[in-house]
Amino acid sequence: MDINLPNVYAEVARCSDRYEQALVSNDVATLDELFWVSPHTLRYGVTENLYGYAEICAFRAARPAQGLQRTVLKTVITTYGRDAATVNIEFQRTGSAHTGRQSQTWLRTEQGWRVVAAHVSLLAPQPA
Amino acid sequence: MDINLPNVYAEVARCSDRYEQALVSNDVATLDELFWVSPHTLRYGVTENLYGYAEICAFRAARPAQGLQRTVLKTVITTYGRDAATVNIEFQRTGSAHTGRQSQTWLRTEQGWRVVAAHVSLLAPQPA
Repeated sequence: MDINLPNVYAEVARCSDRYEQALVSNDVATLDELFWVSPHTLRYGVTENLYGYAEICAFRAARPAQGLQRTVLKTVITTYGRDAATVNIEFQRTGSAHTGRQSQTWLRTEQGWRVVAAHVSLLAPQPA
Repeated sequence: MDINLPNVYAEVARCSDRYEQALVSNDVATLDELFWVSPHTLRYGVTENLYGYAEICAFRAARPAQGLQRTVLKTVITTYGRDAATVNIEFQRTGSAHTGRQSQTWLRTEQGWRVVAAHVSLLAPQPA
């Protein structure tokens, strides 16, 4: 398995950058575009579990456009062969004390690279 | 892209069942076996962000064996072609009021199916 082939890595990095820019500007059309149009697509968010592309789109359409600004603290992109990748980000929302984590699995589809599964959460404090 | 080919799905389901059984019984050897041996492997846990196979193994070795029992509420396994899969689980730990979510990306490696990235978190309450 070829890990992080430079041209594949560059493709995924461009998609990930595009996603991040769309997220903080609430560019819903681009966010919707970058998720796989399938009932199998899944997104666990901080406060919701969404099953299928339709639920994910409905969530984005209803979400307030404010408060989406965030700073990316760390990014790990790994590509596996030519058609699969994971993107994992640690981030901090403006005004929040919590570190967030965003995990995405990307696959190359006939329409281009798409997120097939995502999970976003806040790091919980260590138990005392 | 062939989604959920029955034989591929069955392979991943067996791996996922094996992982779950190892998790609740704290069978660290099997948990370690099922993660990809690579510095690229990543696991975001409820209270920790672990980068690389060595950090993940060290975490498991240090974790108390108690309190790992959980009930799986919902499982979604999706396979993409013959060599890639995602496994997403909603679960509830015994004694906890919170729903947990576990997301894993599995790839077929020369050693068999392995988790290359994972993310575990607790669903946060909806803002009032």
